[in-house]
Amino acid sequence: MKSWKRKIRMGMGGGGEGAFIGGVHRVAAALDQQIEMIAGCFSRDFENTKTTGEQLYLDPSRCYRTYEEMAEKEAALPEGERIDFVSVVTPNKMHFPIAKTFLQAGIHVVCDKPMTFTLDEAKELAQIVEKTGLVFALTHNYTGHPLVRHARKLFADGELGTVRKVIVDYLQEFLCVPHEKLGMKQAIWRTDPAQSGIGGTMGDVGTHCLNLLEYITQDPVSEVCADKSTFLPDRALDEDVNALLRFKGGGKGVFAISQVAPGEENDLKIRIYGSKGGISWAQENPNSMEVYKIGEPKQTLTRAGSNLSDVAAAATRIPSGHPEGYIEAFANIYCGVVEAIRCHIDGRPLETKEYNFPTVYDGLRGMEFIYKAVESCDKGSVWVKM
Amino acid sequence: MKSWKRKIRMGMGGGGEGAFIGGVHRVAAALDQQIEMIAGCFSRDFENTKTTGEQLYLDPSRCYRTYEEMAEKEAALPEGERIDFVSVVTPNKMHFPIAKTFLQAGIHVVCDKPMTFTLDEAKELAQIVEKTGLVFALTHNYTGHPLVRHARKLFADGELGTVRKVIVDYLQEFLCVPHEKLGMKQAIWRTDPAQSGIGGTMGDVGTHCLNLLEYITQDPVSEVCADKSTFLPDRALDEDVNALLRFKGGGKGVFAISQVAPGEENDLKIRIYGSKGGISWAQENPNSMEVYKIGEPKQTLTRAGSNLSDVAAAATRIPSGHPEGYIEAFANIYCGVVEAIRCHIDGRPLETKEYNFPTVYDGLRGMEFIYKAVESCDKGSVWVKM
Amino acid sequence: MKSWKRKIRMGMGGGGEGAFIGGVHRVAAALDQQIEMIAGCFSRDFENTKTTGEQLYLDPSRCYRTYEEMAEKEAALPEGERIDFVSVVTPNKMHFPIAKTFLQAGIHVVCDKPMTFTLDEAKELAQIVEKTGLVFALTHNYTGHPLVRHARKLFADGELGTVRKVIVDYLQEFLCVPHEKLGMKQAIWRTDPAQSGIGGTMGDVGTHCLNLLEYITQDPVSEVCADKSTFLPDRALDEDVNALLRFKGGGKGVFAISQVAPGEENDLKIRIYGSKGGISWAQENPNSMEVYKIGEPKQTLTRAGSNLSDVAAAATRIPSGHPEGYIEAFANIYCGVVEAIRCHIDGRPLETKEYNFPTVYDGLRGMEFIYKAVESCDKGSVWVKM
Amino acid sequence: MKSWKRKIRMGMGGGGEGAFIGGVHRVAAALDQQIEMIAGCFSRDFENTKTTGEQLYLDPSRCYRTYEEMAEKEAALPEGERIDFVSVVTPNKMHFPIAKTFLQAGIHVVCDKPMTFTLDEAKELAQIVEKTGLVFALTHNYTGHPLVRHARKLFADGELGTVRKVIVDYLQEFLCVPHEKLGMKQAIWRTDPAQSGIGGTMGDVGTHCLNLLEYITQDPVSEVCADKSTFLPDRALDEDVNALLRFKGGGKGVFAISQVAPGEENDLKIRIYGSKGGISWAQENPNSMEVYKIGEPKQTLTRAGSNLSDVAAAATRIPSGHPEGYIEAFANIYCGVVEAIRCHIDGRPLETKEYNFPTVYDGLRGMEFIYKAVESCDKGSVWVKM
Repeated sequence: MKSWKRKIRMGMGGGGEGAFIGGVHRVAAALDQQIEMIAGCFSRDFENTKTTGEQLYLDPSRCYRTYEEMAEKEAALPEGERIDFVSVVTPNKMHFPIAKTFLQAGIHVVCDKPMTFTLDEAKELAQIVEKTGLVFALTHNYTGHPLVRHARKLFADGELGTVRKVIVDYLQEFLCVPHEKLGMKQAIWRTDPAQSGIGGTMGDVGTHCLNLLEYITQDPVSEVCADKSTFLPDRALDEDVNALLRFKGGGKGVFAISQVAPGEENDLKIRIYGSKGGISWAQENPNSMEVYKIGEPKQTLTRAGSNLSDVAAAATRIPSGHPEGYIEAFANIYCGVVEAIRCHIDGRPLETKEYNFPTVYDGLRGMEFIYKAVESCDKGSVWVKM
Repeated sequence: MKSWKRKIRMGMGGGGEGAFIGGVHRVAAALDQQIEMIAGCFSRDFENTKTTGEQLYLDPSRCYRTYEEMAEKEAALPEGERIDFVSVVTPNKMHFPIAKTFLQAGIHVVCDKPMTFTLDEAKELAQIVEKTGLVFALTHNYTGHPLVRHARKLFADGELGTVRKVIVDYLQEFLCVPHEKLGMKQAIWRTDPAQSGIGGTMGDVGTHCLNLLEYITQDPVSEVCADKSTFLPDRALDEDVNALLRFKGGGKGVFAISQVAPGEENDLKIRIYGSKGGISWAQENPNSMEVYKIGEPKQTLTRAGSNLSDVAAAATRIPSGHPEGYIEAFANIYCGVVEAIRCHIDGRPLETKEYNFPTVYDGLRGMEFIYKAVESCDKGSVWVKM
Repeated sequence: MKSWKRKIRMGMGGGGEGAFIGGVHRVAAALDQQIEMIAGCFSRDFENTKTTGEQLYLDPSRCYRTYEEMAEKEAALPEGERIDFVSVVTPNKMHFPIAKTFLQAGIHVVCDKPMTFTLDEAKELAQIVEKTGLVFALTHNYTGHPLVRHARKLFADGELGTVRKVIVDYLQEFLCVPHEKLGMKQAIWRTDPAQSGIGGTMGDVGTHCLNLLEYITQDPVSEVCADKSTFLPDRALDEDVNALLRFKGGGKGVFAISQVAPGEENDLKIRIYGSKGGISWAQENPNSMEVYKIGEPKQTLTRAGSNLSDVAAAATRIPSGHPEGYIEAFANIYCGVVEAIRCHIDGRPLETKEYNFPTVYDGLRGMEFIYKAVESCDKGSVWVKM
Repeated sequence: MKSWKRKIRMGMGGGGEGAFIGGVHRVAAALDQQIEMIAGCFSRDFENTKTTGEQLYLDPSRCYRTYEEMAEKEAALPEGERIDFVSVVTPNKMHFPIAKTFLQAGIHVVCDKPMTFTLDEAKELAQIVEKTGLVFALTHNYTGHPLVRHARKLFADGELGTVRKVIVDYLQEFLCVPHEKLGMKQAIWRTDPAQSGIGGTMGDVGTHCLNLLEYITQDPVSEVCADKSTFLPDRALDEDVNALLRFKGGGKGVFAISQVAPGEENDLKIRIYGSKGGISWAQENPNSMEVYKIGEPKQTLTRAGSNLSDVAAAATRIPSGHPEGYIEAFANIYCGVVEAIRCHIDGRPLETKEYNFPTVYDGLRGMEFIYKAVESCDKGSVWVKM
């Protein structure tokens, strides 16, 4: 197959010096040696773009002043020379225009979450993706963990019954300190509604929770009742949200997120209890997962243990006991992207039938959740249907 | 002091053969060798009472046909011979009439939770306790844990700032199986509104959660929005409840309880985050607690470690590393009761000024919480003020 | 049966004010309400004995000046009035003379470990126990844990194959500080060879390790090669010992104990790997045990879970998830003693055929181990056969 | 600086299809995007080399029939075009000849452990490295973990006092099954003394333990007493070793390794207790480490927490709470190599003065340890000086 003759070629929008998530995307893309990073517009500040490009050993002619220029010039190059896809790692505000521009130029897109600045943009983006038929992946990276994929399989296979209760928490200390007043770039845009949108913590960590629980259970949230809080002075966006959830299948859930939880680093935990059994998984120790079935002893499954489903086993690189982590799971999203782009190049269908990464519809779902949760809060924390 | 010349004398209402919590009360009372069990009406079935009495090496003349008879005859005996207090360990329905009868006979009372069958009874009981001036203790046993007492001290001393977020979960597998149809005594009455009252899981484990979080934070819940569920057929009461909480001090919380959570045994966990730090404690591993302060490494405090407050240290019997558990914490409630009764006998005030155990007001609070949560659910899971 | 008409009556040698383990024995004996404490000689200082007796609500006439007097006078009382057994909780030096005196007076004995001051005493004591036919129990309390009993059953049933590797650690911080110079009673006698014997840490915690591993595996240690250390100045006895072990069945082991390990409280852990599977159990979290079988996921068994053997289930009081600990396991030794004494009184055989507690032979084994390990060290850490 | 104008160029000896550790080296080298893989002789089977090269998108002209040819032809290319270093990832037997060949051709070397097939080779290799002045790194990858580096700093700074006790375990299930009879390549050579050398498990995992403990404590092992075992039939090498250790500084240790421990995946744990405090770290959960200081609560430090030393912080890529693992630590070794090679190219000294990775002397030390431990065993498990 033609596509396997070369690495897939990547460009980046955002992720210049001083940024956080851009570097994560590059590391994740590099890990499996199927992708080469060859172009970028890393910042609105062209000096930053040039310095960043140099640090990444890029050809200076592939470092662009604007993303529009990058889309245009790259698209004009022949296939195999031009970038195959661009990763969009800017603040939320810019996700949509950049993604749209590249898609319309015929270039596949990987985009960080939350997908867009507004819900309307999300809807429009979904239409563009449909129309272009290009690959669009959203980096809800936690679905890249092998044990998360195994959990999804357990529910899909009915081994744990129908979902009755979900408890998902995502707690960080990040915003206990007013970093945005102390010059931290990421805190500045995350706490600024003009760059982040209507959700603060809701957009940053809340959308991961929704995506994770719907990914595992495949049982969509049908109603939400949320209560958001802002504790530090001079902040406009939510720092903390609690919510009650109801699922289409009749189950119920609680959702507790915070970026003002002292001592918590990236404490995402999910427990799901069904009619026949349950699971418990925590992002900070992603190499094991507890599985319960009524009447049996608790089992601890491990990331690459001998008792995993094929889908889980396919997402792990090294033997059990040799821990993989955040980067490896993130890289699994990129693996799915590489596979999809290769299929696109070769004009053949995906073996897995559906994309093995979160899509534009996951991104749309996340934006709907932000909007519904904020609506719930604005109306006095009432139930809102999704 | 007169009271120290002898052990304190205990009677029991309920707790005959086949019951669960009565045995726990007896073990807890025996542990510290300050109490002797001497009388009882263990069942409505006098044969059961006689057999139970025999197994407990009681004088047959102190095994009574009815609790009314027991209250009357014991009260007629001279002090030092009669029971000093009675422990009420029946299904909820009988708590109030028994407690009332003994209090009116001048006998102190220890009572299991939830305190009464109805909220009105709870209010009346509070008045009776006030009027009689007798000791009344409610066995919210989890407040007997040394580290829980230390957590309360940390919040009382302001070391962790004002409360911003509370997450409390209490999960059990207990009712995943229809034990009430299979003859299990405890499941029969717990799932029967005629014996349990309007709260099922809410009364059984939910009141512990409320008590625990208000005990530690001393910041009362001011509003609740609850969503209850019943999954198994033919059940009338809640098996599972989720709720959002708001605190008087401005903090927020989530509350997730279930008795249909496969694999969970008695999984009560509480995490409280304040403006300066936080704590995390889990009932199943009660000998350690995590304490976080912003900017400092996480600390793990241990039950009898050298860094505990006096109140915590006073509630532990053996050196750190030698685990204490459920019974020992339960026994700490009885230690407080013994101390209060001894003070009452001697006519001297408590050194600690306030009772070192949950009181009738905690019981009243618990009943209010059940009623408010059920009201919230009945109205469609709306916010209800407490 | 005659014996079930009354509680079993207990006396105590040692355990006066200021002592540690005496209080533990009393709590453990009280827990299950089958034993009443009625007599004692708690100290060589009669004032201490009297005060202690008063605190325990004893009849002053049952508080004795010397243990010889106690043995003589108690033995002269009729059965049912006299003590059925005595618990010996003095420093090691006095174990033998007291135990011998009571056994010869026809009174059963419970004794703390290590059993005697010298190996010769241990041999003589075994003969006395044999000759008198009385109950003698040694409080290697860790064998009282339900999950330890379950582990023994797993090996006995061959479920884990033959033992290949044992790793046992027992670490404490206790002697990092020269407490014996600061007046701590227990540290004074424990660091004094004239009161403790030839083993320091070896006697205090090392004998527990040997007992625990032989109890579980039923595969005796056949050779030992030990290396002992003393780090603090002015100490005569070992504070820390490492050893290699060989088992009769061909397996091997390491043994690492210390009382100068900063931060460790009572950190006894045992891991045993057989040809088919293995277990891991830690005293500080005794309510769960990991069980592995080749090719299967790791299981976590819990103290009162539904997957335990009868022997384990029989040693637990309360449902799983409600943690039991050190005292409860200690109390299980006393339960076995009560059962054995009741059988003795009734003249009937034990249902379990063998005593359900460590016996004089376990004590003798422990003393041999101390002597062999010290011999190994004294010869330059060479292999010594047991 | 000249070196920063381009990526460092890597070749590989070994690591063809069917091998394990070669892929790990490639992933680790790719992660930080400072290295490009451009040449290889992946197997003695040239077909395998060609296929592997194709999968890695290598220029076919850089895929070589023999390592000698590769060394010769690469060395003949100009700097910047030729490989800067080669990674040697063959079975132990071939480490020395390959490393020697490349060093003598002027090419830097990264080599897997144990360093050589015999101790004599190790000595000769050290001399070659000294003479050539080239970079030689041994992938004792566990020293790449940020918290391991922090632990070393704590001991170097005297914060935990002098070492008194070390407990190191490294347990795997790997060889419980006779994989070498079932065709597993790695098991075949690992269990074959003709390919592995005189140590089996000792070479594979034992050398990691020695390296790790000496790296952290900087207190060399001065004496060893070892006891090795082989349990499965038809195996020539050790599967399991226990050893007692003595340190130059007066401390003592135990060492327990096994590849026949059911249920254990890659269970490397190290606990080190000094006169003032101690640490506990486990490879399977490398993102946290417990630190104890006498009189203070236990602390849990995290991989990228705010309380780490600069050396630890420098070895981490992503924020705390986002777990890094085996690959990231392995990549840290490569980061050190890249830095050293860049300095070599630029003719400038290392900022850190010493190499930030295990060197040929660590490899020599490891080989000495294997030989001394085997000597100890062969003489009946006696003490042997190092």
